Amino acid sequence: MSGDEALVLVDNLWLTVAAVLVLLMQGGFILLEAGSTRMKNAGHIAGKTIFTVGVASLVFWAVGYGFIYGEGNAIIGLSNFFYGSAADGIGSVDFFFQLTFAAIALTIAFGGFAERGKLAAYAIFAVLFSAFVYPLVAHWIWSDQGWLADLGKQDFAGSTVVHLTGAMAALAATILLKPRLGKYGKNGKVNDLSGHNQVYTALGVLILWVGWFGFNAGSTGGLDGAFFGFVALNTQLAAGAGTIAALFLVWAMSGKADVPTTLNGALAGLVAITASCAFVDPWAAVVIGMIGGLIVVVSMRMFDKLKIDDPIFALSVHGVAGVWGTLSTGFFATPELAALNGGRAGLFYGGGFDQLGVQALSVVVCAAFAFGASYVLLLLTKSLVGGTLRVTEEEEILGLDMSEHGSYGYPENVQQEQERSSKTGS
Amino acid sequence: MSGDEALVLVDNLWLTVAAVLVLLMQGGFILLEAGSTRMKNAGHIAGKTIFTVGVASLVFWAVGYGFIYGEGNAIIGLSNFFYGSAADGIGSVDFFFQLTFAAIALTIAFGGFAERGKLAAYAIFAVLFSAFVYPLVAHWIWSDQGWLADLGKQDFAGSTVVHLTGAMAALAATILLKPRLGKYGKNGKVNDLSGHNQVYTALGVLILWVGWFGFNAGSTGGLDGAFFGFVALNTQLAAGAGTIAALFLVWAMSGKADVPTTLNGALAGLVAITASCAFVDPWAAVVIGMIGGLIVVVSMRMFDKLKIDDPIFALSVHGVAGVWGTLSTGFFATPELAALNGGRAGLFYGGGFDQLGVQALSVVVCAAFAFGASYVLLLLTKSLVGGTLRVTEEEEILGLDMSEHGSYGYPENVQQEQERSSKTGS
Amino acid sequence: MSGDEALVLVDNLWLTVAAVLVLLMQGGFILLEAGSTRMKNAGHIAGKTIFTVGVASLVFWAVGYGFIYGEGNAIIGLSNFFYGSAADGIGSVDFFFQLTFAAIALTIAFGGFAERGKLAAYAIFAVLFSAFVYPLVAHWIWSDQGWLADLGKQDFAGSTVVHLTGAMAALAATILLKPRLGKYGKNGKVNDLSGHNQVYTALGVLILWVGWFGFNAGSTGGLDGAFFGFVALNTQLAAGAGTIAALFLVWAMSGKADVPTTLNGALAGLVAITASCAFVDPWAAVVIGMIGGLIVVVSMRMFDKLKIDDPIFALSVHGVAGVWGTLSTGFFATPELAALNGGRAGLFYGGGFDQLGVQALSVVVCAAFAFGASYVLLLLTKSLVGGTLRVTEEEEILGLDMSEHGSYGYPENVQQEQERSSKTGS
Repeated sequence: MSGDEALVLVDNLWLTVAAVLVLLMQGGFILLEAGSTRMKNAGHIAGKTIFTVGVASLVFWAVGYGFIYGEGNAIIGLSNFFYGSAADGIGSVDFFFQLTFAAIALTIAFGGFAERGKLAAYAIFAVLFSAFVYPLVAHWIWSDQGWLADLGKQDFAGSTVVHLTGAMAALAATILLKPRLGKYGKNGKVNDLSGHNQVYTALGVLILWVGWFGFNAGSTGGLDGAFFGFVALNTQLAAGAGTIAALFLVWAMSGKADVPTTLNGALAGLVAITASCAFVDPWAAVVIGMIGGLIVVVSMRMFDKLKIDDPIFALSVHGVAGVWGTLSTGFFATPELAALNGGRAGLFYGGGFDQLGVQALSVVVCAAFAFGASYVLLLLTKSLVGGTLRVTEEEEILGLDMSEHGSYGYPENVQQEQERSSKTGS
Repeated sequence: MSGDEALVLVDNLWLTVAAVLVLLMQGGFILLEAGSTRMKNAGHIAGKTIFTVGVASLVFWAVGYGFIYGEGNAIIGLSNFFYGSAADGIGSVDFFFQLTFAAIALTIAFGGFAERGKLAAYAIFAVLFSAFVYPLVAHWIWSDQGWLADLGKQDFAGSTVVHLTGAMAALAATILLKPRLGKYGKNGKVNDLSGHNQVYTALGVLILWVGWFGFNAGSTGGLDGAFFGFVALNTQLAAGAGTIAALFLVWAMSGKADVPTTLNGALAGLVAITASCAFVDPWAAVVIGMIGGLIVVVSMRMFDKLKIDDPIFALSVHGVAGVWGTLSTGFFATPELAALNGGRAGLFYGGGFDQLGVQALSVVVCAAFAFGASYVLLLLTKSLVGGTLRVTEEEEILGLDMSEHGSYGYPENVQQEQERSSKTGS
Repeated sequence: MSGDEALVLVDNLWLTVAAVLVLLMQGGFILLEAGSTRMKNAGHIAGKTIFTVGVASLVFWAVGYGFIYGEGNAIIGLSNFFYGSAADGIGSVDFFFQLTFAAIALTIAFGGFAERGKLAAYAIFAVLFSAFVYPLVAHWIWSDQGWLADLGKQDFAGSTVVHLTGAMAALAATILLKPRLGKYGKNGKVNDLSGHNQVYTALGVLILWVGWFGFNAGSTGGLDGAFFGFVALNTQLAAGAGTIAALFLVWAMSGKADVPTTLNGALAGLVAITASCAFVDPWAAVVIGMIGGLIVVVSMRMFDKLKIDDPIFALSVHGVAGVWGTLSTGFFATPELAALNGGRAGLFYGGGFDQLGVQALSVVVCAAFAFGASYVLLLLTKSLVGGTLRVTEEEEILGLDMSEHGSYGYPENVQQEQERSSKTGS
């Protein structure tokens, strides 16, 4: 066997390891989401994440992969359903790698259901989103046949495909489901329904950060030129810059170095660099991450002003930072790096508005489609689950652990809490 | 260096990364086991898992590896004790990979001690099981000299060797230790001694799922044909199918989508595909995982009916699903895939009952040996630790954190709880 | 492409995967540190770890890498600041790998601030330590130009560079910050300010153990001879031996198998083998780990006798075991293995006191420098943050979650606790 032939196998090993890292990100989401919400919903949040991985896997196998990468047209692929050819190790690797990205998008979309959505509604929407929303955007941008790919859209690892698409579905759900009970009081008062465990949240962010090297560096698809190392470097710097920027901004604005905001800064840096990690210089990665960290702080406050309740910050972290990341490559892509990936240089490198225009167009079209399609599918879902996507007021107060699953995630703590409440009346 | 020579080194790198993933599964077990049990035993459960890895490592080094892979006969290997040759990188890789599997079997076996077994008893049994039970089954099936290997037994990554063997040891301990206080009430009432933290449990399952790619895809032993990718694909689909099947079955049976049951469905899918992942088509992986998810739900209820107390579901998940997984390849193995691994096709592919017979025989023999040997070694252990494997009734009520280790795993929560109890009398 | 050329790319892939494993260790530290401290400081501890990774990344990019590996002299490197060359995949890999080690050293240094240090003070010191302390020690030992490298110092993966340097910074902070309120009572009484969650602690240790294969086996820098497998084997055995040794020693000394002590045994085994993993036989790895596990038990008690408060055991685990690990190779290095890495055999293999002398000298010089420089930088920091490195007594009682970040890490638990306290007066 030649070195080249051996390297093809190693390329596929790297993709498999990267896929395992992306799967690990679901553990980060379990912790991030459970930590950002209240104790009475923690078992539900954690358990539904495992369900999410299961649904995303089976739907991707049945139709998702075919809609994305099957033979078809500029809009949709139409072959390779119920994927599976035993002899094809390399094909299996690609399938498995792509599957893990689809599951992340669905996990992000869940953000709009948090602490109030019926499990039955989420179960149905999970199938519909995985079958009809994510695969179309992914086909447009990542398939050779896709119309946005044809226009030269740059989205190296999925700022648009994964993060923005998931966030737009979350936005549609958020709007239809309305804010959690007690979140917005009279006279514009915003109540703090604090998450119950910042250790979970921080550990979740660290695990996401770790898994992101599968996401970004894995998207090199192989070992050529050790380019994965360069992508990893940019990823690390952007995440670090996002953390620091968010910490100091919130500290300056509020006098306290709020932990959840700092953590969102790290995530915003990661989301922002996801599109551009292969196209920009390290100093630009620092700038992109830093801006990501700053805008997430502003965005979190903006959504609260708009009374759009975003318990796990999916809209700010994956939506707003996803838009920024998609646009950033239109500013910062260097001619050399853009050429490596068949694209054009950004505005700051003399590329003019060409690439920036494609990036902006793709943001608008993909966001509109993901939002609109999710909205329609949620209305369909609503009609299938008794006319409301939301649990009853009593169930929401009791907690979704009990209403949807029949037992508390923390039975011993809740028992204490209930006895406390019954005595103090709080 | 030729591509082939380079590839040998990469094969060994893959085995090492896979071993690290299997070691990570111990973190999944810490969370799964601690989450499935009560707060007063959580420090004990978590701490003993680290101890388990330590004991399994040293015993495997001293004698385990030699009993499995040393020169010997069809029953046992008898060389290579106190393994260690400095110059042998490749030999070290194989040793380390195999070691991590041995440690998983011991962790599963602990299931029978949970919430009531003396630490001293477990410490002694851990050494005996690691030295004399696991290595024999592993030798029979995975060594070239083993008598079941000689019969053509298919157990790609250890449904029998690791999961069933561990579960049978857990069963022996469960029977000798008897149910936890308060588990089975009068008139056949089964009390729910709920685990204290479903976030731990779900995260534990996700980490196990991630680590399982080391277990299954790592068992390819190398990069040939990128076959690891095909094994990974089957693993992912079976786990997803197990999750969905268990969720909907328990939802249909009880009206609630019970979280621990759903999580056990994911694990049952993973355990079931462990034997067959290299031998079956992807659609069959879905079926095997789905059946795994269904039978684990039934099995959990069956053990409670039999008043066999299985706090962390080791018997259902690793035992019953392990049996199903071992048999499944006798039904679904395709001629092409079976031939790749030197085996025969399954019943559904015209292979007749040959392979199924070998699989069934191996289940019966290995289960009987693992149960019988563990039972005898536990009686020996009992005589060494003062005539009982179990802590006293007072110690069990107080919790094993305090009785075995002298401090609570959650001192601040327990202080609250004790004050609550002393006031309410509950 | 030849096999050799392909292998260079794979070497770099391995370094990248190893770097990701070392980054994962930060998750282990979140859990270890949060679990070892009290609930009221948990959000702070977890959040500052993410901040730590961010600061360490940006400072390493700006100046750290240049001070270590830039062209310079025996004391310091002086080029390659603001690292970043887009085309250089392989250079990026080395940068990223080294960056993750620098971040670990800073995380260890935080140990001296735990539960009482101002966030602003830590933020400033983090920058100074990352810029001026760690890079110098790393340059001396790991750069080709370094004066200790020139003397033949053996520190394969950083017992001295990472662990001892971090621990000495922690010691300087510990001395300047003084013990936590209530830790040392009258008449020499040592109060137990128990950590709040042993599940976190144990899981943290497991994750550190997993990540350590990136640390040690990754430090082979490539696949040559599959030597990474041998290093992994030694690492696993030392960690197992440290666990067992600490468990049985503390059990014998106190009658109880204390969980935190057992866990520190595992870490001490890992820290100890970090210097010597490439130089010693497996049996020696068992001995080195075992001795590490024994001395950490003694060291924990010694620091309490000296009234040096070490909440997360950084001084014992990383300091004392780091010294032992650095010296151990002077005793146990075999001629063959030492020669592979250009060093000399240890005392027990006829190498005389040469290597042991170099090891001892490096410990003394590096410890003195890291302590002294950190002490001076902490005094500088103190003058920048209002004359004290420590929060006020009221803030310490309230907890750093609230004082430094404005919200509790566990708001629901703390609410319960406060109501309890206000009623019972405890």
